[in-house]
Amino acid sequence: MIATLKFTTLLLAVVVCRATQDYGYKDVEEPTLGDSQYGSLWPLPQKVQMSTVAFKLSGVSFQIVDAKESSSGASCSLLQNSSFCCLSTDELSVDSPVAVLKAPKVWGALRGRGHGFYKSINRTEIQDFPRFTHRGLLLDSSRHFLPIKVILANLEAMAWNKFNVFHWHIVDDPSFPYMSRTFPQLSQQGAYHPYTHVYTPSDVKMIIEFARLRGIRVVSEFDTPGHTQSWGKGQKDLLTPCYSGASPSGSFGPVNPILNTTYDFMAMFFKEVSTVFPDAYIHLGGDEVDFSCWKSNPDIQKFMAQQGFGTDYSKLESFYIQRLLDIVTTTNKGYMIWQEVIDNGVKLKSNTVVHVWMGNKFEEELQKVTEAGFTTILSAPWYLDYISYGQDWQKYYKVEPLSFNGTDAQKKLVVGGEACLWGEYVDATNLTPRLWPRASAVGERLWSDKDVKDTNDAYSRLIQHRCRMVQ
Amino acid sequence: MIATLKFTTLLLAVVVCRATQDYGYKDVEEPTLGDSQYGSLWPLPQKVQMSTVAFKLSGVSFQIVDAKESSSGASCSLLQNSSFCCLSTDELSVDSPVAVLKAPKVWGALRGRGHGFYKSINRTEIQDFPRFTHRGLLLDSSRHFLPIKVILANLEAMAWNKFNVFHWHIVDDPSFPYMSRTFPQLSQQGAYHPYTHVYTPSDVKMIIEFARLRGIRVVSEFDTPGHTQSWGKGQKDLLTPCYSGASPSGSFGPVNPILNTTYDFMAMFFKEVSTVFPDAYIHLGGDEVDFSCWKSNPDIQKFMAQQGFGTDYSKLESFYIQRLLDIVTTTNKGYMIWQEVIDNGVKLKSNTVVHVWMGNKFEEELQKVTEAGFTTILSAPWYLDYISYGQDWQKYYKVEPLSFNGTDAQKKLVVGGEACLWGEYVDATNLTPRLWPRASAVGERLWSDKDVKDTNDAYSRLIQHRCRMVQ
Repeated sequence: MIATLKFTTLLLAVVVCRATQDYGYKDVEEPTLGDSQYGSLWPLPQKVQMSTVAFKLSGVSFQIVDAKESSSGASCSLLQNSSFCCLSTDELSVDSPVAVLKAPKVWGALRGRGHGFYKSINRTEIQDFPRFTHRGLLLDSSRHFLPIKVILANLEAMAWNKFNVFHWHIVDDPSFPYMSRTFPQLSQQGAYHPYTHVYTPSDVKMIIEFARLRGIRVVSEFDTPGHTQSWGKGQKDLLTPCYSGASPSGSFGPVNPILNTTYDFMAMFFKEVSTVFPDAYIHLGGDEVDFSCWKSNPDIQKFMAQQGFGTDYSKLESFYIQRLLDIVTTTNKGYMIWQEVIDNGVKLKSNTVVHVWMGNKFEEELQKVTEAGFTTILSAPWYLDYISYGQDWQKYYKVEPLSFNGTDAQKKLVVGGEACLWGEYVDATNLTPRLWPRASAVGERLWSDKDVKDTNDAYSRLIQHRCRMVQ
Repeated sequence: MIATLKFTTLLLAVVVCRATQDYGYKDVEEPTLGDSQYGSLWPLPQKVQMSTVAFKLSGVSFQIVDAKESSSGASCSLLQNSSFCCLSTDELSVDSPVAVLKAPKVWGALRGRGHGFYKSINRTEIQDFPRFTHRGLLLDSSRHFLPIKVILANLEAMAWNKFNVFHWHIVDDPSFPYMSRTFPQLSQQGAYHPYTHVYTPSDVKMIIEFARLRGIRVVSEFDTPGHTQSWGKGQKDLLTPCYSGASPSGSFGPVNPILNTTYDFMAMFFKEVSTVFPDAYIHLGGDEVDFSCWKSNPDIQKFMAQQGFGTDYSKLESFYIQRLLDIVTTTNKGYMIWQEVIDNGVKLKSNTVVHVWMGNKFEEELQKVTEAGFTTILSAPWYLDYISYGQDWQKYYKVEPLSFNGTDAQKKLVVGGEACLWGEYVDATNLTPRLWPRASAVGERLWSDKDVKDTNDAYSRLIQHRCRMVQ
């Protein structure tokens, strides 16, 4: 279910949000910028034609009218529950002619809202559709626990920026806040706090529904075999005991790939996950597996010899991943994995989505992954947890995801990207202002046409878009 | 009135705030740190002796008892209004013996609170006093307007970190939010918004009183002759008209130093400021004066020739500053100035406080300024608006303000420092999480003994101190 959005046509009107004076934002270090001809539109639609014909707004409620060919109908709860409702309190209607928003899918209609209604508007024609179908944002609720209200606020901000995938990196080494029905000990022992710092089944359900109402998929990530220290607290024998010389050191490494109990656990665990998270994809991680603990363990060494792996521990990693993928396949889910899995030569099903995150040479990786025929999403240039002084949004904005060498067919395999906000230095106190509006730059890059790359024009629109989000 | 704190003795008890688990803070990138023997104390007192004797707390209200030699009395409104009051709602008292907080000045008693009371406490003896008398924090309300509640929240955070000077950089080029009774046009024309983005006289009074109740002085800065673009909007002829060739370009430069009307204005303006802000000092700025506009103006050129300044425009700057200082002297205020004023050779009264802010060679500047006999405060290494990834608090923490070459007498002239959060990229949405707990590092550096410099110990205490501030 990589997003189903294809094409949205809408005839609506736009008004400029005067942010500079009203919100008190002014950056003296930058040249004074003129207003964009596109006002405060963000992300910029594929085609905008504004005219000088002005319409007045009057006090008639906004209505959703069922198109002849509609399969959802005006009573579709998704639209009724969406921010469209707010429009009626703004008493929107247009004198003449009526404003029309056409969309072949309900998700497109959802994203057709929010171009800014006000008291008087110019006649404007907008044709819009996203350039990339996967427009994601990763939040990490393991390094610091993220209260539900923070997650919801960011889903709201994502909707304003037409993001459609919330990549929930829900557990990792530091803590396991996901409350499993099958293995309640995982959060009981592995969360920062077993009651206050967990996501209960109803929390998860609520977050998924809140996202769905905004046209956002929730892709959960349960990263193995590395990044699993917190799993080991509540699940005996799941992790590899590390050795110091001839005896166990007391510390643990990645998931133990040589025990049948490991795979029994994973089968039950991912069966649960596949029902809790309705999305067609699960992110299985697979990044940054540290081999040193495996190397230290005599049972692992023995297993390596039996399997004929020699000293190539990436073969052991592949062994584990292959079996995990077989398990997840039985749940009828597709899967995403971080790039190391393919870099290490694991045999993957052709419908695997490869997530490219490493370093500066992402173009080479994209070339390699797509040459091998895999669908891919890009995060390497969009690690928003790395902060620096000044307007670093421009750095994110200037990235061209298809700048790698490859055929048209290869480029079509790049279905989008994700901005990542890892949680080492992020929690409820600073997440939102650290993420927004920087992530908006990624939002426009993934939505708008590739030729939309004028940073001055973007700056003018972004200031106003930020004002709108703050309000 | 550089702070009057000298010595505070207190006998009180301390409890460890367990932040790591309770608040969900854990940094996987850093080595796991042991608990500090000083628990969550921040900034670290000058002398702490903990014993294993535990006292229970029972439900008797906290009382302020008048010492024999006290000049303020237990009914002193400052203490009654302070956070001491909160203690009674926590029903604090100590079984035996009583907790005693002695301080020769009321400000010291204020800062004696806040060492963390809980349900059971160990007998602990603390002797405390600040290493530096000037422990400031600069906020900039011109580049972005700062709502009053943001300023108050930060005054509260300052109190928790024993800062005692709020340096209010209230106006600058981008906006003039200070509402002047004498010259209402300044904010009417120069603020981002004449009603919503201004500080009225009662706003200012309230902020000063809120600060005073926390033992914090408010030093206002009205920076001239540069950084004054916003002043020009409401005060005709105050700024220098720039020329393009033989005719005015339409833009304006620094304050016009050759007109008598300029000094008439300044005399009236600073007379008002001196009554609105009760502190004994005013910060007069004087930094970053751009000479290009002065150079372009034929009237200025003529004046330079008449005065025999040749082409040395720093002499013109000095001419202006000298007259300004004479004006401010008539208000019976002391003044602080940024380092350029002394660097450019302006003749200063011996009681001027020089504020060192430039670059990496602050040690040389401190050496020079104190050699000339001036009191000085340091901000150069503490520009907290410059952000970077990771734990940059350590960089601020490791600064030793007295590391320059100089005699003991010179070192005594360094009365403290200020953390600065300039407003280019800071407003109500991100100020508090960007500033805290990073500024806490400066707070401890300015309060605690110079030998308190173990970053591991500080890290352990800071995590818990942060937890306390968040709560």
